[in-house]
Amino acid sequence: MALGTIVSFKALLAVVALGAGPALAEASADERRRRGEAVIRDLNRGQAQPTLEGLRRDFPDLADAITDYALGDVWGRPGLDHRTRQLAAVSAFAALGNQPFLKVHAGYALNLGVAEAELKEIVHLTTVHAGFPRAIEAAQTLSALFAERRAAAGTKP
Amino acid sequence: MALGTIVSFKALLAVVALGAGPALAEASADERRRRGEAVIRDLNRGQAQPTLEGLRRDFPDLADAITDYALGDVWGRPGLDHRTRQLAAVSAFAALGNQPFLKVHAGYALNLGVAEAELKEIVHLTTVHAGFPRAIEAAQTLSALFAERRAAAGTKP
Amino acid sequence: MALGTIVSFKALLAVVALGAGPALAEASADERRRRGEAVIRDLNRGQAQPTLEGLRRDFPDLADAITDYALGDVWGRPGLDHRTRQLAAVSAFAALGNQPFLKVHAGYALNLGVAEAELKEIVHLTTVHAGFPRAIEAAQTLSALFAERRAAAGTKP
Amino acid sequence: MALGTIVSFKALLAVVALGAGPALAEASADERRRRGEAVIRDLNRGQAQPTLEGLRRDFPDLADAITDYALGDVWGRPGLDHRTRQLAAVSAFAALGNQPFLKVHAGYALNLGVAEAELKEIVHLTTVHAGFPRAIEAAQTLSALFAERRAAAGTKP
Amino acid sequence: MALGTIVSFKALLAVVALGAGPALAEASADERRRRGEAVIRDLNRGQAQPTLEGLRRDFPDLADAITDYALGDVWGRPGLDHRTRQLAAVSAFAALGNQPFLKVHAGYALNLGVAEAELKEIVHLTTVHAGFPRAIEAAQTLSALFAERRAAAGTKP
Amino acid sequence: MALGTIVSFKALLAVVALGAGPALAEASADERRRRGEAVIRDLNRGQAQPTLEGLRRDFPDLADAITDYALGDVWGRPGLDHRTRQLAAVSAFAALGNQPFLKVHAGYALNLGVAEAELKEIVHLTTVHAGFPRAIEAAQTLSALFAERRAAAGTKP
Repeated sequence: MALGTIVSFKALLAVVALGAGPALAEASADERRRRGEAVIRDLNRGQAQPTLEGLRRDFPDLADAITDYALGDVWGRPGLDHRTRQLAAVSAFAALGNQPFLKVHAGYALNLGVAEAELKEIVHLTTVHAGFPRAIEAAQTLSALFAERRAAAGTKP
Repeated sequence: MALGTIVSFKALLAVVALGAGPALAEASADERRRRGEAVIRDLNRGQAQPTLEGLRRDFPDLADAITDYALGDVWGRPGLDHRTRQLAAVSAFAALGNQPFLKVHAGYALNLGVAEAELKEIVHLTTVHAGFPRAIEAAQTLSALFAERRAAAGTKP
Repeated sequence: MALGTIVSFKALLAVVALGAGPALAEASADERRRRGEAVIRDLNRGQAQPTLEGLRRDFPDLADAITDYALGDVWGRPGLDHRTRQLAAVSAFAALGNQPFLKVHAGYALNLGVAEAELKEIVHLTTVHAGFPRAIEAAQTLSALFAERRAAAGTKP
Repeated sequence: MALGTIVSFKALLAVVALGAGPALAEASADERRRRGEAVIRDLNRGQAQPTLEGLRRDFPDLADAITDYALGDVWGRPGLDHRTRQLAAVSAFAALGNQPFLKVHAGYALNLGVAEAELKEIVHLTTVHAGFPRAIEAAQTLSALFAERRAAAGTKP
Repeated sequence: MALGTIVSFKALLAVVALGAGPALAEASADERRRRGEAVIRDLNRGQAQPTLEGLRRDFPDLADAITDYALGDVWGRPGLDHRTRQLAAVSAFAALGNQPFLKVHAGYALNLGVAEAELKEIVHLTTVHAGFPRAIEAAQTLSALFAERRAAAGTKP
Repeated sequence: MALGTIVSFKALLAVVALGAGPALAEASADERRRRGEAVIRDLNRGQAQPTLEGLRRDFPDLADAITDYALGDVWGRPGLDHRTRQLAAVSAFAALGNQPFLKVHAGYALNLGVAEAELKEIVHLTTVHAGFPRAIEAAQTLSALFAERRAAAGTKP
């Protein structure tokens, strides 16, 4: 993945927007790959995603499907702003009780400027949608994430 | 539920906003009830919610808990706009495969001005979060909802 | 299933109690079958269970496994009173969102003398364990069950 | 949480029982909080609940909602004895595969005098309700809990 | 979908097999679409799939994603025979309790020559993996499917 | 469990096949136990299964139910080859997100001669059935399993 040659996701969206619908559905293999790689870098502060990279050795086709379909075709769609999409993902993973993916997507949300307080609102909704145990586990995951990021940034809570 | 005497949710939020945090946590029984009733009317175009009303005869305490806690304490919180919250709910119910609640919350979203196209974006995310069967079922639920609302409005698709 | 020849479950338990543990684990094929048949009749007011009978034509081995293992080996165990066991089953099926099995086991619970009010308590617990949608669905299922039984008994609510 | 000033849950229930229904639904904010705190102390041998306390710093509103709604409004209801309620909770969490909450509620059950053998019966039911993997995981969780409590009590199995 | 111009899936596989791995990952948009359409026709006795066609009006992008990714990229992979793959799908949907998708994939399995008796074996496994209720629901779904197909073929059971 | 005296599963099947159906349903307690023990040894390279053995002290009746019903009655059935059955189990546990049981059954599959590449195909199906997070978790579990077995065999990947 030659990072230097990849245009930013925002630039790409500007191009895609010119002929959006069909371009998305009928993108070439190259365009899909590039779009997926641009999405992950925009979500992950310009860096490769460790879970995804960890799959490449044993499951290269799965890593490609994630890049091309999940990131390129789906997360690369225009039509909903990235903040709302991450909050929707956080809501789904909190309700499903999938803590590792909740953590990854809550991290993306923070990278995109979502406030910690907004993520906490999703936890309150989760008490209603899926019960208190799921909400409590989500709260614990977010607390751990907030603490890790503060530690990495060298700041106090 | 004397609808005439209930102030609108937006008016209430304006008041609540003056002393938000503590007021919410320590609201009196009356305030919680009133806040919950205001929320449901704002989401449901000023009308009572049929599922909720259907519970009152056999499960009055549950109907009260929904009004006071789920609607009043949780959905009545400030801190996230109502549109985002509904999209988060739609995302959770699509991932969980709960079609009746997906339909109710997608209806609220449309009432609040969310576009059909935005709801469709949640379906695309659901293919990634929870697989194609869940997404297909959500698509079928939304199609039925869109058709019902068009029929009720006397319009063609 | 020659009903006339089957001793009641309570009579059987009295016998089993004499040498409980090993007898259960090492029951003969005949004893397991008879114990399972006795359990279903004690739960279902002396009658065959329609879901189970419906399986016999296409899935006879499954019907036998339900009778021998699920009913005979598990539900036929001493060690927890039948009322508590049914409430535990109702709680599990409410949390899992399995309405048909919730209805069957709530019916058994009523047959055993559990009060409607006790079943309603499980619904309140379900709001905490698994969220309001699961609890609301369980409430609707119980309301339908209560109404059917009142209609069958020719009584008013 | 001034523990010294909190009346026991049993004493509170005696009071509440005088005018139960309405008092529960329309309890003041103070009464709900107090009732929730009394419940947790009765379940947890007079001590604060570590998971709940861990939420207070980052999620104070969630900790309050747990205390007021989950513990005060729901677990503080009369209408089902505490033993049955804990067995119902253990059954739900075993079927859902939620080991941390299964462990907490199985611990409460033991605190209330439920026998280890009764908890094991729920595991047998779980093989039927939710399959052998869920039951095996529940058995492993209970074994770990039993061992921890024996170690804490300085006794041998 | 011009059916006349679509080569059969088996013919396509023969071609793909020449340079399998990379060809799959880097197929052009046209090739992916064609491969997906060939897969569905091979599974569904040469006919369009009603659920998929039903999505085209409101959710055309989703219908395309199903064709291109789910059918083309995934179900179009070599590496596992189609019979085993359908039995794996039936096993997953039985365990998840998704009856509509269980029915569709059990129908594909029968189309591919899987015996009714083999599908019944999956139901027995489901009692272990996911419990008796899931297995009983799967048995009821298969019974209905078997009956529909016999009725359509004008045969007696 | 006197391993030396247990005939192999294949030998047993040959015997069972003589009068299969009824023999299975009406096997004596001894035959069921022996059949279950033969199954586990055939799946697990002639060795006892650690999870099962770990249950014997606290949950002896559950260990017996696993041996007699899950292994003896279900996994000991003829009617589907063992490879297909393990792939069906892997598919179910991947979709359910149960990593420990996925690992155990993927290990059995490898013991029976299923190729790593075939297990990877199930992961691709899981992206469709249950979404990318479940598939990614399954991929990580399989990678860990493959690595452990290579390490145990003293080979390089």
